[in-house]
Amino acid sequence: MGNGSSINNPPVDLTVTRIKFLREPTSRAWLDQALAHLDIILLDHSHCERKAAGVALNLMFRYPSNVKLVRQLTAIAQEELQHFEQVNQQLQLRGIPLGPLAAPPYGAALNRLIARQEPQRLLDTLLVCALIEARSHERLNLLAHHCPDPELGIFFGSLVASEARHYGVYWQLATESYPLVQVTERLTQLAQVESDILASLHPQPRIHS
Amino acid sequence: MGNGSSINNPPVDLTVTRIKFLREPTSRAWLDQALAHLDIILLDHSHCERKAAGVALNLMFRYPSNVKLVRQLTAIAQEELQHFEQVNQQLQLRGIPLGPLAAPPYGAALNRLIARQEPQRLLDTLLVCALIEARSHERLNLLAHHCPDPELGIFFGSLVASEARHYGVYWQLATESYPLVQVTERLTQLAQVESDILASLHPQPRIHS
Repeated sequence: MGNGSSINNPPVDLTVTRIKFLREPTSRAWLDQALAHLDIILLDHSHCERKAAGVALNLMFRYPSNVKLVRQLTAIAQEELQHFEQVNQQLQLRGIPLGPLAAPPYGAALNRLIARQEPQRLLDTLLVCALIEARSHERLNLLAHHCPDPELGIFFGSLVASEARHYGVYWQLATESYPLVQVTERLTQLAQVESDILASLHPQPRIHS
Repeated sequence: MGNGSSINNPPVDLTVTRIKFLREPTSRAWLDQALAHLDIILLDHSHCERKAAGVALNLMFRYPSNVKLVRQLTAIAQEELQHFEQVNQQLQLRGIPLGPLAAPPYGAALNRLIARQEPQRLLDTLLVCALIEARSHERLNLLAHHCPDPELGIFFGSLVASEARHYGVYWQLATESYPLVQVTERLTQLAQVESDILASLHPQPRIHS
């Protein structure tokens, strides 16, 4: 996925959010699409926060004896719910009604990469979660820098640090349970697929289109 | 279900927690079982809090356009997660390891009562949630009053008010979307079944045994 900027748009510095964790940075095409549909992006963002809380809860449910995982994911779920509430307040301020929104293929495609058997299943799950959080971090940071509505830009910016912390937590949980060489090798594979999924822009504007 | 107190136990005032919402009060047999297995009850309590957060999240997922429901259930989910964290701290203080625990038949039996079709489905779901919260409220209050460990008693007591608020929220959401006569009629039916389920004590000590 290149940063193929379109002719009609002025150059934009996408490197501000370059994250080593991700194989390829987000394209200019995504940023253009997102900025042109901020209402939908904000609604999708609300769904993303709620889903992220659900993912953390489900993981705690699956590994109830893993004290460190339970403790860290409780904190993440709480924070995601707080963000969910904040995004919903932004939607209300802007008169955007809450409602369903079809998910892009991103999440389902990543979930298909997760092994069905332990011990690989937990490693894959943690790394997929880390990648999703890293991508969210990168894209919210892009929105924070390029959003034409300054208040909304500040709002996106206020969430950026949390998303970074979240992918750090998932990464750390992985490295504490698996040898570092195995974790980095698997991350390399998964990060490549993650970037491949996003290489063709999903026609519907989403945080992960 | 009567308050059939056993011969070997001194009389205990169970009326302190009598809740009109529930068809029958909790039996003395449950309280005896719970007080004899406080470690397991505390571990089960942890699972109950996490599950309650999950139920609230799933409801938000199913009714994403219902602004009032989403707002109220976000608050409930946040509070349940906070309690989950607090219960886990109590477990840690007491050296009780986190771990899986087979659920009693209570939740599944109640879920089977929920209509599969709307508009009845939402009404049933809200009332079943209300009944579970009301029962939790009643039983935590019993534990708060009769727990031989004063610190643990204080802890249970600190959660009682929230549980009461939660069943109030579920009830209120129901009455705002359905005619009061329909809500009270359905509650009467469901509350009878809820008490019937608990009439025979589940052999494994649980919050809802």
